[in-house]
Amino acid sequence: MTDPSAPSDPGSDPVTADLGFARVDLDRARRTGDPEVVYGAGKTPEQVLDILATLHARHPDRAVLATRLAPEALALLGAELPGVRLDPLARAATLGPLPEPQGTVAVIAAGTSDGPVAAEATLSVQVHGAAVRRVDDVGVAGIHRLLEARAEFADADCVVVVAGMEGALPSVVGGLVGVPLVAVPTSVGYGASFDGLAALLGMLNSCAPGVVVVNIDNGYGAGVHAARVARNARRRG
Amino acid sequence: MTDPSAPSDPGSDPVTADLGFARVDLDRARRTGDPEVVYGAGKTPEQVLDILATLHARHPDRAVLATRLAPEALALLGAELPGVRLDPLARAATLGPLPEPQGTVAVIAAGTSDGPVAAEATLSVQVHGAAVRRVDDVGVAGIHRLLEARAEFADADCVVVVAGMEGALPSVVGGLVGVPLVAVPTSVGYGASFDGLAALLGMLNSCAPGVVVVNIDNGYGAGVHAARVARNARRRG
Amino acid sequence: MTDPSAPSDPGSDPVTADLGFARVDLDRARRTGDPEVVYGAGKTPEQVLDILATLHARHPDRAVLATRLAPEALALLGAELPGVRLDPLARAATLGPLPEPQGTVAVIAAGTSDGPVAAEATLSVQVHGAAVRRVDDVGVAGIHRLLEARAEFADADCVVVVAGMEGALPSVVGGLVGVPLVAVPTSVGYGASFDGLAALLGMLNSCAPGVVVVNIDNGYGAGVHAARVARNARRRG
Amino acid sequence: MTDPSAPSDPGSDPVTADLGFARVDLDRARRTGDPEVVYGAGKTPEQVLDILATLHARHPDRAVLATRLAPEALALLGAELPGVRLDPLARAATLGPLPEPQGTVAVIAAGTSDGPVAAEATLSVQVHGAAVRRVDDVGVAGIHRLLEARAEFADADCVVVVAGMEGALPSVVGGLVGVPLVAVPTSVGYGASFDGLAALLGMLNSCAPGVVVVNIDNGYGAGVHAARVARNARRRG
Amino acid sequence: MTDPSAPSDPGSDPVTADLGFARVDLDRARRTGDPEVVYGAGKTPEQVLDILATLHARHPDRAVLATRLAPEALALLGAELPGVRLDPLARAATLGPLPEPQGTVAVIAAGTSDGPVAAEATLSVQVHGAAVRRVDDVGVAGIHRLLEARAEFADADCVVVVAGMEGALPSVVGGLVGVPLVAVPTSVGYGASFDGLAALLGMLNSCAPGVVVVNIDNGYGAGVHAARVARNARRRG
Amino acid sequence: MTDPSAPSDPGSDPVTADLGFARVDLDRARRTGDPEVVYGAGKTPEQVLDILATLHARHPDRAVLATRLAPEALALLGAELPGVRLDPLARAATLGPLPEPQGTVAVIAAGTSDGPVAAEATLSVQVHGAAVRRVDDVGVAGIHRLLEARAEFADADCVVVVAGMEGALPSVVGGLVGVPLVAVPTSVGYGASFDGLAALLGMLNSCAPGVVVVNIDNGYGAGVHAARVARNARRRG
Amino acid sequence: MTDPSAPSDPGSDPVTADLGFARVDLDRARRTGDPEVVYGAGKTPEQVLDILATLHARHPDRAVLATRLAPEALALLGAELPGVRLDPLARAATLGPLPEPQGTVAVIAAGTSDGPVAAEATLSVQVHGAAVRRVDDVGVAGIHRLLEARAEFADADCVVVVAGMEGALPSVVGGLVGVPLVAVPTSVGYGASFDGLAALLGMLNSCAPGVVVVNIDNGYGAGVHAARVARNARRRG
Amino acid sequence: MTDPSAPSDPGSDPVTADLGFARVDLDRARRTGDPEVVYGAGKTPEQVLDILATLHARHPDRAVLATRLAPEALALLGAELPGVRLDPLARAATLGPLPEPQGTVAVIAAGTSDGPVAAEATLSVQVHGAAVRRVDDVGVAGIHRLLEARAEFADADCVVVVAGMEGALPSVVGGLVGVPLVAVPTSVGYGASFDGLAALLGMLNSCAPGVVVVNIDNGYGAGVHAARVARNARRRG
Repeated sequence: MTDPSAPSDPGSDPVTADLGFARVDLDRARRTGDPEVVYGAGKTPEQVLDILATLHARHPDRAVLATRLAPEALALLGAELPGVRLDPLARAATLGPLPEPQGTVAVIAAGTSDGPVAAEATLSVQVHGAAVRRVDDVGVAGIHRLLEARAEFADADCVVVVAGMEGALPSVVGGLVGVPLVAVPTSVGYGASFDGLAALLGMLNSCAPGVVVVNIDNGYGAGVHAARVARNARRRG
Repeated sequence: MTDPSAPSDPGSDPVTADLGFARVDLDRARRTGDPEVVYGAGKTPEQVLDILATLHARHPDRAVLATRLAPEALALLGAELPGVRLDPLARAATLGPLPEPQGTVAVIAAGTSDGPVAAEATLSVQVHGAAVRRVDDVGVAGIHRLLEARAEFADADCVVVVAGMEGALPSVVGGLVGVPLVAVPTSVGYGASFDGLAALLGMLNSCAPGVVVVNIDNGYGAGVHAARVARNARRRG
Repeated sequence: MTDPSAPSDPGSDPVTADLGFARVDLDRARRTGDPEVVYGAGKTPEQVLDILATLHARHPDRAVLATRLAPEALALLGAELPGVRLDPLARAATLGPLPEPQGTVAVIAAGTSDGPVAAEATLSVQVHGAAVRRVDDVGVAGIHRLLEARAEFADADCVVVVAGMEGALPSVVGGLVGVPLVAVPTSVGYGASFDGLAALLGMLNSCAPGVVVVNIDNGYGAGVHAARVARNARRRG
Repeated sequence: MTDPSAPSDPGSDPVTADLGFARVDLDRARRTGDPEVVYGAGKTPEQVLDILATLHARHPDRAVLATRLAPEALALLGAELPGVRLDPLARAATLGPLPEPQGTVAVIAAGTSDGPVAAEATLSVQVHGAAVRRVDDVGVAGIHRLLEARAEFADADCVVVVAGMEGALPSVVGGLVGVPLVAVPTSVGYGASFDGLAALLGMLNSCAPGVVVVNIDNGYGAGVHAARVARNARRRG
Repeated sequence: MTDPSAPSDPGSDPVTADLGFARVDLDRARRTGDPEVVYGAGKTPEQVLDILATLHARHPDRAVLATRLAPEALALLGAELPGVRLDPLARAATLGPLPEPQGTVAVIAAGTSDGPVAAEATLSVQVHGAAVRRVDDVGVAGIHRLLEARAEFADADCVVVVAGMEGALPSVVGGLVGVPLVAVPTSVGYGASFDGLAALLGMLNSCAPGVVVVNIDNGYGAGVHAARVARNARRRG
Repeated sequence: MTDPSAPSDPGSDPVTADLGFARVDLDRARRTGDPEVVYGAGKTPEQVLDILATLHARHPDRAVLATRLAPEALALLGAELPGVRLDPLARAATLGPLPEPQGTVAVIAAGTSDGPVAAEATLSVQVHGAAVRRVDDVGVAGIHRLLEARAEFADADCVVVVAGMEGALPSVVGGLVGVPLVAVPTSVGYGASFDGLAALLGMLNSCAPGVVVVNIDNGYGAGVHAARVARNARRRG
Repeated sequence: MTDPSAPSDPGSDPVTADLGFARVDLDRARRTGDPEVVYGAGKTPEQVLDILATLHARHPDRAVLATRLAPEALALLGAELPGVRLDPLARAATLGPLPEPQGTVAVIAAGTSDGPVAAEATLSVQVHGAAVRRVDDVGVAGIHRLLEARAEFADADCVVVVAGMEGALPSVVGGLVGVPLVAVPTSVGYGASFDGLAALLGMLNSCAPGVVVVNIDNGYGAGVHAARVARNARRRG
Repeated sequence: MTDPSAPSDPGSDPVTADLGFARVDLDRARRTGDPEVVYGAGKTPEQVLDILATLHARHPDRAVLATRLAPEALALLGAELPGVRLDPLARAATLGPLPEPQGTVAVIAAGTSDGPVAAEATLSVQVHGAAVRRVDDVGVAGIHRLLEARAEFADADCVVVVAGMEGALPSVVGGLVGVPLVAVPTSVGYGASFDGLAALLGMLNSCAPGVVVVNIDNGYGAGVHAARVARNARRRG
């Protein structure tokens, strides 16, 4: 790779698109292997539309992603962008063809209420180039469900474990397999769960070795990390 | 039982022993079935000695208990009170004969480091009238250890589960059996465990039904509750 | 009991019902003595309906329970499930006959505003097989109300104490009787109550021996624990 | 009173004594009725000595007070200041005659471990001009002890209630009498008491009307407030 | 006074009114000098109406108070209770004649936004028997405003200081006068004020002697304490 | 300057305007160089209008500012105050001519979502007498954008850096230039950002020397400080 | 792999070694690919010695690891275990030959004070089968140091970034390369760093995509995860 | 200035000194106007010595600074570095001649206990090129002391206000003058001051306009910012 801080060559592609309200980082795929993603929270539907279209124009042969979309933003994208794929459960949208998957990520969710976060993780894995295998509703209070499903995740290249409440599931999964494991705390719970803080702390203190954690409800971040792990495991050999 | 707030009969036993620095509650066993216990923290060894001796004089036929004892207090009790039994791991001492046990409590500990808290719980159960079965070092990162030991706790009258770090063990145990279960978070851990807060929050948010929780490192409180549950299960029928 | 992790016998009843969005734990009653309960928060009314009907089909002779129901879910259950019993104050519903009660739980509430949590605890006790005696509005600022009512809870098999604000009531009750006691902090209060945190911390630090605690507003969890304690006290002898 | 911000008359007494390391507020008694008090924490024994001697020189006919004194500071004051009175339990010292007491403050402590804070409150009340009646070791887990002692505080002019752990005592006292009541949380406790935070939050959320609170372990602040309330109740009529 | 825990004489007035949803403490005025107050949060308008009417029937010659009233509750009281006085800014209502004021409380507010809390404090003082002098909008960023107004509060019998944001005003007032001072933190502020936590902590750590504190936005609690202080200062002499 | 606490001369301008609900500090410009600013939160539109008009009448030749305005307040000001300038993004309004700018402040924002806070900072700088240069959307995940823009802020008289999420931007900017730098954390983020707390803590712990911080979302405070720094840098020489 | 919960074959190797004080998980390498690691905190030197020797006997051809060792434990291991390798900076020890490294992990540290945590991460990577490249003292306040060193980490298979204070380094590194990245917050800092909480929150809220986080000072956990990622990237192809 | 990220010219001075354990940023003075400062916490005395000597060699004509020095580090520097100046109260050391001061910073401290932090601020201002005027022990509980001293800070180029406990002093100073003001919370206090958190929150929520804040006890950071503000105010005109 070249020096990321070098002044851009006048004849080369621009590294930034100035939309007035945003400087879109057109150079990110060159530096990191993946295009910039639109974080929809705090942006108007029109801003989301503009940035996503700009990124698609730069990367026409590869899916670009927008997350944390309000219903209004989903509706506007659906109306204005031909070919856009909307995922209302994940509150996300993609434009352009998904990359050929390399490697597999298992996305495991503790309960039905963790579904939206698991969906965001799933879509993020796919956009970043890996395949997904889903294992849902295997919370630790019925441990037989998890043991029955062990074969579904034991040979994945990376595992994403999504759980709210006490967030115990990653510790149990992490003791069953040695696959690289990313834990996602969710805001599912009440009272002293403090909107996901209990699950977050639980996962950070997991007694299983090698558990790593992302922000509360951050299915996207877990998906990006897991996809990179999985595709490298298959791509490089 | 009689009215606890009724003025004490002049001819009857006094309900309070005034030691100057403390009003010992001599009436507690009548009201609650168990004598007062000496909480040693913040008291001088001499104060612990005086209160324990006072309680023993009132209840000569039944063990009385002192907890949270500094080494100096343990040493003084050992030197001054014939017949005292010291438990340095639990940092506790008892004086007088243990009651005949009724019912059984399983005390399950996640790791070796949780030993002192499990020891305090064990002794507290015994002093309050039930038998104890210990199951140690069965943390969730090696779930087979817990499954192998299931028979040791599945038919107890109450289960006490002691764990630090993420505190996931009660959720798994609580999904395997329907025995009344008390969870004890310990201060084992570091960083974002915040001296046991992570385990406490995890246990309060357990997805297993009916898990109840005591303060961090409070083996004593869990032991009292569990003993009362266990002895009632056997005594009343 | 049999090994909970053993592969299910092909000819036996299935241990899991796969509804697509959920893996219902049909085996829980065998393992723990009580069927799975539907936690309604974060689920659509249709999902609640499906799971509750599935559980009822498995356990036709015993009440199954759904908690934390939005008005829409209560309405749908009322319309679609003949014989369902709705409890709007507890925000819960049951289907099937209540078990014959064994043992008695006293549910004590500090104030009128704690009513919904006390109602959830009450119903949970009944569904899990014990009888309930209610003692309401006996906060510590008028201690005579509690002392007058002492006879109503002194001989129960377990006591559930529900309180918000400073959460002092369990300490006072716990000093009056030796019945196993479960404290439920509620989110009643304002300012530095921090949505029930003050009451939760107060109860965790109770100076009365043997007080155990559940999550803020978790009447259900207290009810399950108390029912198990109470029914064992009567059943086993 | 005169304008506190007016430039000081050249011929009058100075309002500030500049000791180099401190500007002693010699004017405070004129403005507020009480001399400045030396807060010993973070000061060297020599600094404490200098300030206390300076205040005594200004107020020879009235006791001045130093609090939060390390053993070294207590020793130095004892050696250098003839007539000083040391109170090691309260970690405080006074110099000069106590004022004639007007009105009475009841200082109630929940447990033996709260003794040092109660001692600081007691001395502070006396230095600020009121009499003290002590009621010790009347925690709520043995409510009969408090009810027996009710006559000792029901007719005081102000009540100071000192308690750690869950801090429930002020709520019970506040429901028994209508005397102005100041609650002092102490750092007595462990685990989720968080060095007195649980007691502080409990007292701030007291369901008893009119309970006011000071900082954790701040016996001094409670004593000053209570003495002012008590002496005004007697002085003005 | 008589023993508050004594069984009530059959021929005497009842000490509790059982409304089904509430046990109204009819005995509180005898024990504490003031009737019970209706805390409106978490109660239906009909419940507020019932309790207030019950208290008024017991205390026809003295104002009774309801606080934290939603607009619906204020409307219902206005429609159903002849003679009720509504205070929408304080979100409170009173029924029955105010007592003859004894002593004076100065209620000082830092800013316009603190008005509702100051109004609740003001009304609570009046209902509990003292007169009020208001001093508004004298925040510390314009200290001359406070110094100009000093005469308005320097000779009060008690001072209530209401402030949000950093909560500095009590420290400045407390350095100017020696009147007993109650500080009320308000939830005015944003960001790291954390809904009044910054002001609460500031006031608890005031460097001015004798500052006592109530819960965030608790004008009622401050008013009760201050009224008791003020009326005792005038009544007893 | 004169003594701020001196009694006002009867013949001079009044230092306070009493609007009934507010004591407007008309003297602030004399003491501090800048007029009082109207903080709109918690005030009715009519109160905002009255105070802004009063300040404008006192300072007709200099812009006065109102911040944190609800849409209703913006609308009322627009309708009632000829010449008012509304800034809906900043949620602010000004009345009267902006001062001639002296010195320049660079306002740097990490992302598009930080726009409203950057707008409040920008307007506040202008009202307090300095010029602004904006540098937007230069978050640290694309460091080349910041390096490219370095010339735009390296020679400013003060830099304001606005960022949410992890709040890392001030540390990077602070290592590139030695201009006095004010960091503004924003509430942009989710989960463990805790409404801006993560960014606030990050900025307070910046490893770059001399970074100072204001409250979450407090563009106004940063703007006032920066303008004073910038205008002094140019004015005094 | 085989069923982890299957009863162990009587003729096969035992899956657990019962040392009395610990049940050593001898089966972990079979399930997860790596042997159990000895967490030394809270264990006596003798316990550490016993467990490490037991693990070494089971895995003689592969290094086993003990972490968080007090000086006494390090000394005992050095004296009793021939061939042990001590790493005092990392506070760790290994016994047995390191595995042949597959893949490379870059361990990047922000400052000199982060050295111990980086050392623990380094050793953990090596024990778990990957090579390490170290890049030290490249904090964001001198961004040129990091840019100069970019080639040292841009082609690694995984990156571990260790930083205290505001924890900004992972965000900048994460914007420069697309390598899977694990962030380790350290307790380096003071005041509002709250022993690493500021860095932890900063990293959880990183604006760079795919950043995952471990507990404060948890170099071990980051090392395990990174080694698994790196060795899979090379092993499987 | 030149591009900070440009590759260094082979013939020019090196921008980094590699000491093995540290990469000293020799280029910082060129980029920011001030040399790197040695943060002594977490470094051995020998490391501090090496870095300070390296920086001095690069900047022989200008003082370089080391802060947060343990007594051992102070002693070693005194023994090994001729000409070093030690400041034990500030726990800091400087080497090389102080720059000619330009502009003046007033450092105001609330109490005697804040002295060490004020000393660190003072030295930091001087090393970074401005003069200091000290105003000590002017806490808000004796407001006349501050008003008397107003002339000492009203005409400074920048004001640093150091305070613990409730941290109210910056608000009062900020209302008296319009000088750019930096607030430094200190860890002076106890109980609910939470080691300076109360003062930090108070200052962040100051009602005085333009108050900016640094980390708890961070006299250094405040000094750097203030010196830059002050010297620019004088240098540039």
